[in-house]
Amino acid sequence: MATAVQNPLAVSLGDPAGIGPEVIAKCWDNRAAFGLPPFVAIGDPRSVAAVWDGPIEVVDTPRQADAAFDYGLPLIQLNVPEADVPGHPSVAGAHTSLDALELAVGLARSGSASAVVTGPVAKEQLYAIGFQHPGQTEFVAERCGVSPGNVVMMLAGPTLRTVPVTTHLPLSAVPSRLTSALIESRGRATLRGLQRNFGIAEPRLAVSGLNPHSGEGGQLGREEIEIIEPAIAALAAEGWRVTGPHPADTMFHSTARAHYDAALCMYHDQALIPIKALHFAEAVNVTLGLPIVRTAPDHGTAFDIAGQDRADARPMAAAIRMAAENATRRADAA
Amino acid sequence: MATAVQNPLAVSLGDPAGIGPEVIAKCWDNRAAFGLPPFVAIGDPRSVAAVWDGPIEVVDTPRQADAAFDYGLPLIQLNVPEADVPGHPSVAGAHTSLDALELAVGLARSGSASAVVTGPVAKEQLYAIGFQHPGQTEFVAERCGVSPGNVVMMLAGPTLRTVPVTTHLPLSAVPSRLTSALIESRGRATLRGLQRNFGIAEPRLAVSGLNPHSGEGGQLGREEIEIIEPAIAALAAEGWRVTGPHPADTMFHSTARAHYDAALCMYHDQALIPIKALHFAEAVNVTLGLPIVRTAPDHGTAFDIAGQDRADARPMAAAIRMAAENATRRADAA
Repeated sequence: MATAVQNPLAVSLGDPAGIGPEVIAKCWDNRAAFGLPPFVAIGDPRSVAAVWDGPIEVVDTPRQADAAFDYGLPLIQLNVPEADVPGHPSVAGAHTSLDALELAVGLARSGSASAVVTGPVAKEQLYAIGFQHPGQTEFVAERCGVSPGNVVMMLAGPTLRTVPVTTHLPLSAVPSRLTSALIESRGRATLRGLQRNFGIAEPRLAVSGLNPHSGEGGQLGREEIEIIEPAIAALAAEGWRVTGPHPADTMFHSTARAHYDAALCMYHDQALIPIKALHFAEAVNVTLGLPIVRTAPDHGTAFDIAGQDRADARPMAAAIRMAAENATRRADAA
Repeated sequence: MATAVQNPLAVSLGDPAGIGPEVIAKCWDNRAAFGLPPFVAIGDPRSVAAVWDGPIEVVDTPRQADAAFDYGLPLIQLNVPEADVPGHPSVAGAHTSLDALELAVGLARSGSASAVVTGPVAKEQLYAIGFQHPGQTEFVAERCGVSPGNVVMMLAGPTLRTVPVTTHLPLSAVPSRLTSALIESRGRATLRGLQRNFGIAEPRLAVSGLNPHSGEGGQLGREEIEIIEPAIAALAAEGWRVTGPHPADTMFHSTARAHYDAALCMYHDQALIPIKALHFAEAVNVTLGLPIVRTAPDHGTAFDIAGQDRADARPMAAAIRMAAENATRRADAA
């Protein structure tokens, strides 16, 4: 468990009309039960006050949050002209969420915060204000000076970690988008991330096949032979512990999971179906390949239930806890 | 739980060199712990004796198995010239496995056996002797006078049932193979199977999307809009309770699973990843759309561990138990 020896974590509230403010406030409320280290929220305090009656401690820096954390939810206040209404996303709210993200990343870059945890944002509204990234991950990468192509999204739960090689593509576009170079690059970033963020000195990567039964020796597709196997061989030649291609349907039961530290999957649902089936409330989105630690809960803004005290704070708590653990591992290694 | 009021189940041993004989013998050994009703094995008793020291009661008919079941593993003996060796598949063994399957289906068709459970066979060896079906399912369908296109493979576990619309195809061929008519036909067979085999009067079917996030309104693929939604509408117009298309990654956590009786999935791994992640040792392959009840454990011959007393009998036990339950439901409804 992370200790207060580190600087607090920076947690952006996400869209002020979504469930971000509520789940972050609930995390502070249940900080002992969830086992959470000090963190500081970033956003408009009115978006928290609209959905939560607890104490808010407005602070100027993450460092002040350490002392304030015992008394209320520490929050760095953004200058926002008008308060948003829970459940009613707006263009102004999108600006607020982006400003919070920007500040959180800056604090982590400078070392004032030990890691960034990002609340859920509304892509539609962000696009309306000129946001041009597919999601927060790519924005964070750019602000860290890293090419979005070199970061990977990992979904991490208590007994399984998965990484999709391709992400938000139509399924029909997946086979033509897969290349050995892409699999190698994602694999390498995953392995390095397992070392840096998770403290696994000799990480084991299991690579899935694309086709049923991993193609059955070419009978059910040739991508395993032509694309995936060469990528595995290349990674192995670099000294990494890599196995596969494994039939995706038999990779995720408990006995199989014990044989690897992360599963590299060929497409979105292949990675996300097992992690959400097994660890729905505890799956954390971890961005690997960044100079900073960044995690996020694996859910959206849920505007339909915002402001109703119905949102489950466990995914946000898991994201905060994992960010602290990852940051501790990185600090220990440095 | 099934009772002995029914006729015994017919259980084909599968390939004599695979783990079928071992796991079926272990099922008899642990019949009380597994909660299994009387069944009769069909095959070469030497393939059982080679891997198991327990008593074998050779019988002529399933009916005799009822009385014999307390004393040993009842077995209908096939005329096999030479014994097979565990772990060493042969063409002769493929003939034996096919004869056992044929007899088991015949006994269920005639009513002498209340259902068929099939042990794992070796496709490569079967193809060598002229077997022209993709698997046992299609063979059983043909022997029952049903077009293979009208039966569906369901994977059923304690908290989840899934049905793949397409099965053993390269992933790249899935989008072009999907049609509304195919989804409707698989959906209808699934819903009728839930009624007949599982006794659910008003079954609820959840249909998955094909693309990440179910295509996000067409942004990540149009199959949901053009193919899947019309199929759902057509089934709903017939009065069935059908929902979807659901994003596949959020369909399989426990809260979501409580909302449907079966998930209709677009491709092999979409259906098999969640069932095996959640219920690896208990997932049963159930063929719906047949005049008889047929189940199978969802594993192969495992020649590499045959004859070493290492095979897990729980999947076969689950298949036998589910066959008995399905047969009871059908008998009750008849």
